[in-house]
Amino acid sequence: MAELHARLRAGLPDGAVLTDPDVTASYAHDMASFCTAGTPAAVVLPRTVEQVRHVMRTATALRVPVVPQGARTGLSGGANAAEGCVVLSLVKMDRILEIDPVDRIAVVEPGVVNAVLSRAVAERGLYYPPDPSSWETCTIGGNIGTASGGLCCVKYGVTAEYVLGLDVVLADGRLLRTGRRTAKGVAGYDLTRLFVGSEGSLGIVVGAVLALKPRPPVQLALAAEFPSTAAACEAVCAIMAAGHTPSLLELMDRTTVRAVNRLAHMGLPDSTEALLLCAFDTADPVADLAAVGELCTAAGATEVVPAADPAESELLLQARRLSLTALETIRPATMIDDVCVPRTKLAAMLDGTAAIAEKYRLTVGVCAHAGDGNTHPVVCFDPADEDESRRARESFDEIMALGLSLGGTITGEHGVGVLKKEWLARELGPVGVELQRGIKRTFDPLGLLNPGKLF
Amino acid sequence: MAELHARLRAGLPDGAVLTDPDVTASYAHDMASFCTAGTPAAVVLPRTVEQVRHVMRTATALRVPVVPQGARTGLSGGANAAEGCVVLSLVKMDRILEIDPVDRIAVVEPGVVNAVLSRAVAERGLYYPPDPSSWETCTIGGNIGTASGGLCCVKYGVTAEYVLGLDVVLADGRLLRTGRRTAKGVAGYDLTRLFVGSEGSLGIVVGAVLALKPRPPVQLALAAEFPSTAAACEAVCAIMAAGHTPSLLELMDRTTVRAVNRLAHMGLPDSTEALLLCAFDTADPVADLAAVGELCTAAGATEVVPAADPAESELLLQARRLSLTALETIRPATMIDDVCVPRTKLAAMLDGTAAIAEKYRLTVGVCAHAGDGNTHPVVCFDPADEDESRRARESFDEIMALGLSLGGTITGEHGVGVLKKEWLARELGPVGVELQRGIKRTFDPLGLLNPGKLF
Repeated sequence: MAELHARLRAGLPDGAVLTDPDVTASYAHDMASFCTAGTPAAVVLPRTVEQVRHVMRTATALRVPVVPQGARTGLSGGANAAEGCVVLSLVKMDRILEIDPVDRIAVVEPGVVNAVLSRAVAERGLYYPPDPSSWETCTIGGNIGTASGGLCCVKYGVTAEYVLGLDVVLADGRLLRTGRRTAKGVAGYDLTRLFVGSEGSLGIVVGAVLALKPRPPVQLALAAEFPSTAAACEAVCAIMAAGHTPSLLELMDRTTVRAVNRLAHMGLPDSTEALLLCAFDTADPVADLAAVGELCTAAGATEVVPAADPAESELLLQARRLSLTALETIRPATMIDDVCVPRTKLAAMLDGTAAIAEKYRLTVGVCAHAGDGNTHPVVCFDPADEDESRRARESFDEIMALGLSLGGTITGEHGVGVLKKEWLARELGPVGVELQRGIKRTFDPLGLLNPGKLF
Repeated sequence: MAELHARLRAGLPDGAVLTDPDVTASYAHDMASFCTAGTPAAVVLPRTVEQVRHVMRTATALRVPVVPQGARTGLSGGANAAEGCVVLSLVKMDRILEIDPVDRIAVVEPGVVNAVLSRAVAERGLYYPPDPSSWETCTIGGNIGTASGGLCCVKYGVTAEYVLGLDVVLADGRLLRTGRRTAKGVAGYDLTRLFVGSEGSLGIVVGAVLALKPRPPVQLALAAEFPSTAAACEAVCAIMAAGHTPSLLELMDRTTVRAVNRLAHMGLPDSTEALLLCAFDTADPVADLAAVGELCTAAGATEVVPAADPAESELLLQARRLSLTALETIRPATMIDDVCVPRTKLAAMLDGTAAIAEKYRLTVGVCAHAGDGNTHPVVCFDPADEDESRRARESFDEIMALGLSLGGTITGEHGVGVLKKEWLARELGPVGVELQRGIKRTFDPLGLLNPGKLF
């Protein structure tokens, strides 16, 4: 380990190599704290591409695994340390290099915080849509690694759709530039897209060209109360079938609504079975919300409350954004599923999830990006209680099995990490896994990059 | 060859294996007829996935190369036969299997014609945006192979953004399913996107899940005349900087306008240096066009003519769609460049192209998806004239070099094929080429799939 530390320090500035075990231990985990993690041999905090290349050359020379990290807000253990690894934190590479309103691109380093970029482009009349719940702290590099989603996706899509080109340091320290700065481009295989969602297993993203949109009008929201999640899902299907394009279409079940009320006293309707939030950032959001309100009523909504103004709309969004934090107060720990099903299967997914919770005698609160069919069943449990922990893990797995049986995927936006490794193989099948491993070998023949993740 | 024919026939129905050299020769070329092509040993026309698997198993057993083909409307020679290959035409697999307005997806076989799908989904109130110029005849499988674009891209993006999942027969006949039917999904590396634009070099696409959008309002267009291409490009930049989202933003240079007038007597302004076409399919297209008209005037437009109604708008689009056919009447043959540059570099690209035409004493008409920075300089030449042919090829290459020097790509939407092979390596660089070749080996270790294309 002394040689590793010395060789890392030879190419990195003072303070950029952390070796105190108390300090490095604090870099072992992302937010999926119950997932296993190893002990890092060192944490490095490079500030330049050349320094990242030095780290990778050193790691390759000494055959030491490297785990890239952003803000460690991930929910699948994808950034958890491997035993004896170098944790390569990109948070100090946090410069926005360029924002161009005509080309509608931003060029950024990977450590830029999502909210910092979003506000910087907004000042230029532009919009960077991807908005994971952790957007105030998570980094663009982490968003690229996990192909993050958010509330915006029902209209604006996920991170992958905003990554035009990448600068990547390969496992052996060589530099690769993928993609483009242009609006279109089809030259060769799409390596850019291959890196998005690869969880740091193919290379270290050290720069990105991101696509931007013109800033839309401020969105206006409504809340609709339903007597069952099935009725709320029926409304979701009716809204999509009618050709609407909401900028947000979220569902909170009773457990989630009550948890948010307890946490923040936001005055949500405590007695409701399911709350649907819908917003539009169109030219005439009042008319669009009126049409959606009628569809909700037809699907059985007991009350439809349009926000009076953008401020009230923002309050509804805040309630939704608090869901996860609120559900975390129910028991000492949570496991967050991320199953995405076809919209037509959303009701079956939610009913099935409720049945699984009952079977395992657990509280499972569900918030969902309903317009995308992307549900987040949050399994609440006490890690100190062995039996409850076992039931939690089994119910978590059964929810993924249900999602796959409904034609869905085990992960809509949180990634695989260590939490869903075994399930990735079930979703991909043996041919898919073999090809994915072949790609991994092409980029990282020594298997040094984020080992033990994905597959 | 007798063994190949016999083994192919053993798993294919009567009439699905063509071996008459006069017939098979007619499958040797796509629309880039001047690109080199080999002589096919056979042409097969399977109707089922199982039949495609039989073809690939046979080809692997006998080590015979396979070239997949759709409607052969490609412009880069990507579907040209390799010497002694099996041409695998997917045009008989032309069923639309499913259209779902709630999940907003279509499930199709690869031989479905783009226009057939577009009309079928329109009947259900839905929209499949990708619209290459050849949309009335080209197939979805071909669109996926080349990652086709079209006029819609400035607002709706390219084919890649509409492919959610694929069924693929691998080189050895195994079946791979990639991606999903859901709105979101990040499980493992994005193999779906890897196949889009891979020009049949990684596997045979035998089925696709496509994303659909709600059908937008009918678009309304305007035409603006400019005294120079530079002024028209200034207008393009001003339109994008102002945050507009046109559904179409096209440029035709003087040569193109005149050629279209000669061909179709459409009454375009013969004396103009550059014609800009802009359309909106928004809630209030008249207001949006008025705003764009003012920006055009400010940029120097000598005349701005809004279409009176959707029919007149459609006529303007028809003029644009005729551009290529019209330019083909100037000399016996054409070579069509497909350089895409950042919008901010569009004027430099067009001025540079004009200088190259002058240097080589050739007619080069330019039509462009100006809103995307995607130019199509059409080099007109006579293949019977050796010196002119040489000058044509040199100017064609110099236009790509110019595009790269301006931060652009050699292909925005037509693909690499055989026409731009050497240039792909220049754009990607040695590290990129090495990794792309590694991916190719992972999927097709014997190198049987569409050999000699891309790299």
